[in-house]
Amino acid sequence: MTQTSQLDHTTAAERTPLAALRDELARRGLTGFVVPRGDEHQGEYVPPSAMRLAWLTGFSGSAGVAVVLTQRAALFIDGRYTLQAAAEVDSQQFSLHHLVDEPPHVWLARALGEGARLGYDPWLHTPNGVEHLREACAKAGAELVACADNPLDAVWLDRPAPPLAPVVPHPLDLSGRTASDKRAEIAALLTADKVAAAVLSAPDSIAWLLNLRGGDVPFTPLPLSFALIHADASVDLFIDPRKLSPGLRGHLGDTVRLAEPAEFGPALDRLAGKLVRLDPAGAPAWVLDRLTAAQAPIQRAADPCLLPKACKTAAELDGSRAAHLRDGVALAKFLCWLDAHAAGGAVTEIAASDQLEVFRQQGILYRGPSFPTISGAGPNGAIVHYRSTPETDRLLEPGQLYLVDSGGQYLDGTTDVTRTIAIGAVGDEEKRRFTLVLKGHVALAAARFPAGTTGSQLDCLARRALWAEGLDYDHGTGHGVGSYLSVHEGPQRVSKTPSPQALLPGMILSDEPGYYKTGGYGIRIENLVVVTDDGITPGFRAFEVLTLAPIDLAATEVGLLDAVERDWLNAYHRRVRDTLTPLLDATTAQWLEKATREV
Amino acid sequence: MTQTSQLDHTTAAERTPLAALRDELARRGLTGFVVPRGDEHQGEYVPPSAMRLAWLTGFSGSAGVAVVLTQRAALFIDGRYTLQAAAEVDSQQFSLHHLVDEPPHVWLARALGEGARLGYDPWLHTPNGVEHLREACAKAGAELVACADNPLDAVWLDRPAPPLAPVVPHPLDLSGRTASDKRAEIAALLTADKVAAAVLSAPDSIAWLLNLRGGDVPFTPLPLSFALIHADASVDLFIDPRKLSPGLRGHLGDTVRLAEPAEFGPALDRLAGKLVRLDPAGAPAWVLDRLTAAQAPIQRAADPCLLPKACKTAAELDGSRAAHLRDGVALAKFLCWLDAHAAGGAVTEIAASDQLEVFRQQGILYRGPSFPTISGAGPNGAIVHYRSTPETDRLLEPGQLYLVDSGGQYLDGTTDVTRTIAIGAVGDEEKRRFTLVLKGHVALAAARFPAGTTGSQLDCLARRALWAEGLDYDHGTGHGVGSYLSVHEGPQRVSKTPSPQALLPGMILSDEPGYYKTGGYGIRIENLVVVTDDGITPGFRAFEVLTLAPIDLAATEVGLLDAVERDWLNAYHRRVRDTLTPLLDATTAQWLEKATREV
Repeated sequence: MTQTSQLDHTTAAERTPLAALRDELARRGLTGFVVPRGDEHQGEYVPPSAMRLAWLTGFSGSAGVAVVLTQRAALFIDGRYTLQAAAEVDSQQFSLHHLVDEPPHVWLARALGEGARLGYDPWLHTPNGVEHLREACAKAGAELVACADNPLDAVWLDRPAPPLAPVVPHPLDLSGRTASDKRAEIAALLTADKVAAAVLSAPDSIAWLLNLRGGDVPFTPLPLSFALIHADASVDLFIDPRKLSPGLRGHLGDTVRLAEPAEFGPALDRLAGKLVRLDPAGAPAWVLDRLTAAQAPIQRAADPCLLPKACKTAAELDGSRAAHLRDGVALAKFLCWLDAHAAGGAVTEIAASDQLEVFRQQGILYRGPSFPTISGAGPNGAIVHYRSTPETDRLLEPGQLYLVDSGGQYLDGTTDVTRTIAIGAVGDEEKRRFTLVLKGHVALAAARFPAGTTGSQLDCLARRALWAEGLDYDHGTGHGVGSYLSVHEGPQRVSKTPSPQALLPGMILSDEPGYYKTGGYGIRIENLVVVTDDGITPGFRAFEVLTLAPIDLAATEVGLLDAVERDWLNAYHRRVRDTLTPLLDATTAQWLEKATREV
Repeated sequence: MTQTSQLDHTTAAERTPLAALRDELARRGLTGFVVPRGDEHQGEYVPPSAMRLAWLTGFSGSAGVAVVLTQRAALFIDGRYTLQAAAEVDSQQFSLHHLVDEPPHVWLARALGEGARLGYDPWLHTPNGVEHLREACAKAGAELVACADNPLDAVWLDRPAPPLAPVVPHPLDLSGRTASDKRAEIAALLTADKVAAAVLSAPDSIAWLLNLRGGDVPFTPLPLSFALIHADASVDLFIDPRKLSPGLRGHLGDTVRLAEPAEFGPALDRLAGKLVRLDPAGAPAWVLDRLTAAQAPIQRAADPCLLPKACKTAAELDGSRAAHLRDGVALAKFLCWLDAHAAGGAVTEIAASDQLEVFRQQGILYRGPSFPTISGAGPNGAIVHYRSTPETDRLLEPGQLYLVDSGGQYLDGTTDVTRTIAIGAVGDEEKRRFTLVLKGHVALAAARFPAGTTGSQLDCLARRALWAEGLDYDHGTGHGVGSYLSVHEGPQRVSKTPSPQALLPGMILSDEPGYYKTGGYGIRIENLVVVTDDGITPGFRAFEVLTLAPIDLAATEVGLLDAVERDWLNAYHRRVRDTLTPLLDATTAQWLEKATREV
């Protein structure tokens, strides 16, 4: 770029996205605009056409929100992404803030001037989210303005087209329940509450309800769409007809009416005067506004599919066990390969995760990773949501810990597993802290608890050993996992945050305590578990472990384990060995024998 | 009573309270009336003049509510009181219901007919409570009617006069903070929220704020009164002037204005147009109604004294330690006495609790029990809130467990302690379960945890060992304790119920897991602890144990304890022995030496 052109007015193409958006806001008489990471469906992954936050700021993480004002612009990200955001975002343009410690609405209450006009796209915010923005504006004496069309989209000239991945049936032998049975269950819930219809905006709820899968976003087989389920168990599905695979209409049947996405608004209008259920933490505010304009009374309540989707059927659990068996074979091959190659100092983070992907692809029914693999050597392991790039790629060096968190989407189940591996011999500090994390992992996995117990009640079991040495980790202990669906799903979770949701039989959760020493190393040990009846005392629950992969004994300080913990570890390793060995080549089997030896 | 008089109309004095109340309701055109246990101050204990529920139903427990309708009457009590209520209440008159499983508003929604008129006394219900009643009436198509004067009081002919116990200053060397300092802190909170004044209706909040103590209710040194604290740190105290001890006006100073209780209403009227803070879970609905009529906007928020009162000053903690030392001496003498006398089978529950009271009275600054002593032998120990009466009084029989839960009000602190004692040799099952309870007690007492941790997060530490054997207990693990104030105070607690309140340094809590086998035995081990900085890692907390009394080794299966638990028990017993021995007679000291031996 020559000096002359710098003096000229820059053209739209040459302006930064931030400058282009500010011009557009000025044209519309807006003082500011809120750009969330989420799309209309509030899912974890969004298609390229909805990557507004990344286009505007450069930040590619999976959670965050930007606020653009006339003179200032701010990006809010959580603790997982502090380092990544600093690397990706131009700090001259955007100040960085902690999403939890200083949320946008708190910042806005101070940053907005009296009389300011803050715009937002009502498709991209939930009613609860809008409420926060409204309170912030009220405090500042500013006005909150719903934008009928998104000003960012108006200046995003090379915005990709929305995805059109084919939507296919999810077979009954994998789901274990017909769609009509599921529709009847939800309809009964609505009828009991005298609700005429419920709005479904979460694609995984719609996929679960109608036994559908798609491919509109990375890592999760979701068909993006909206739906209304009525008290008569019929469904209106608003979806681009170009996505429907042959035979899908037959699969859906007559009580599922297909309509163009543009028909969603008019269908909401037709609910005038009827009680409609809507999830204020998940639905677009646009839907609430439209229903309110149509004078439909609203029942604010959670997505009715959330809980039945979380409690897996016997077929889904069988599928998950089968998927975990194949995933375990891939993991055993990978860990054996790592043992043979990494000690020589010749394996990089990316090479390792590529190799793991190769082994996963050798199994049947594998459809790809369930999230971007975290493959972090040494200090990179301390970055909780690290994603290795050619610039950051490190060698797995002897004497260091290597953390690999990965998962697979199989047609019969979704997996998610983390192992932390000692490359060569690691120091006493690393081993002690690895063992504290292991003690927490085992305490949760081995827990028995009465019906009605929530994940928040169990969370401290996983932290207690770390707490006793003044240590902790800054993330939840466990999240729900879908069945060939989202690797993160609710309503169950294990975390410090209070949750009213009891753990129910059939719920799949992760058990993943960790410890992170910034600039040093990261430790996390993660298995998936399923809530079961404990089989001994009526009314008591326990966990069945789904994940099958050895936990690194070279990183374990066995002397720190008590008898119960040692017994658990030996029993788990025996099960891993007995289950996987018949499916392994001789080299891997031999390696597994040693990796799962009794301690 | 002759047959002739039975045929006559009965006079008011001869009718049952229930019949008298029904007549009065009919006179007022009411279909029903709600009679709660609480008074205007919603405290745990009420003066005889407010024991309306006991007068009406005979039920003398500390929690419950009755609903009287034209044809039916119901008494709602929680699980602690099922047996007691069945014994005290005429089931011909009142059906018994579980307060939690079938709360009054749920029962009312079904029991009230269309067009019914349900009365309530707005002084005796909180705004939140009235909301529940209003929803129940709305569901039933009934009308909820606030009674300007209480119809029950109109027919309670021998109602005692309200209490007039003297109100005295609580000395600065015990409170550690001047009232003006406390008033300034609360005023700053109000100013920050732009609140003009806060309503105080909890007598312990007023007692804390103004460094006052009284004696209007049993077991807790409370002066019943109402107060308003203003943003300028001045206070209006509405109290019967006959209660004021000489010199009290001087203690309170000029910025505390004294007024007759009848002045409370007019003072609320004068807040017209000003923002007033009111605790919707604690204040009388009457106050909200009056403020609403005066067009004062309301900030619904917790009593502002709650949190600062919970965080004890250094002087209060020193006082508590001193009180626990004297309480420990009394407990050691009692347990030694018990050891000498009970094995012979000659001690009853009442004799034991009387003897404990005698030993407490031998200490200085003792003002009486902090709650009715629970002294339960064998199966009576399984009744969580058991109160021994001459009819239920049992011998402490060899081979049984004896549970004693008691506490003292000392001028310098409030105590609350439970010990479970093996009378002679007890069975293996009792010992095993005692030891599981002990493991839970120790796990909580020995916990270290990061700042921000709540009591609900820690609760499962106390239950884990029981859960592992399919056992549990149906009460909270810990409650807050006041400083020469209520033995139960918030906002902190340790329980399954989610609580957003972090445990803060200076908070006193009980640690009291238990196990109850109905018809068999009860086990509970309770110490008071105080939250402290852990002294090792910045930002980490721990507990200091306040209670000093041996835990019965004869009931402990030492082999079930792990090394950490055994170390804790030995260290605790060493501290109990070292601290108490210099204060004991030779016999008790000798007994304590054995009772606290290393295991």
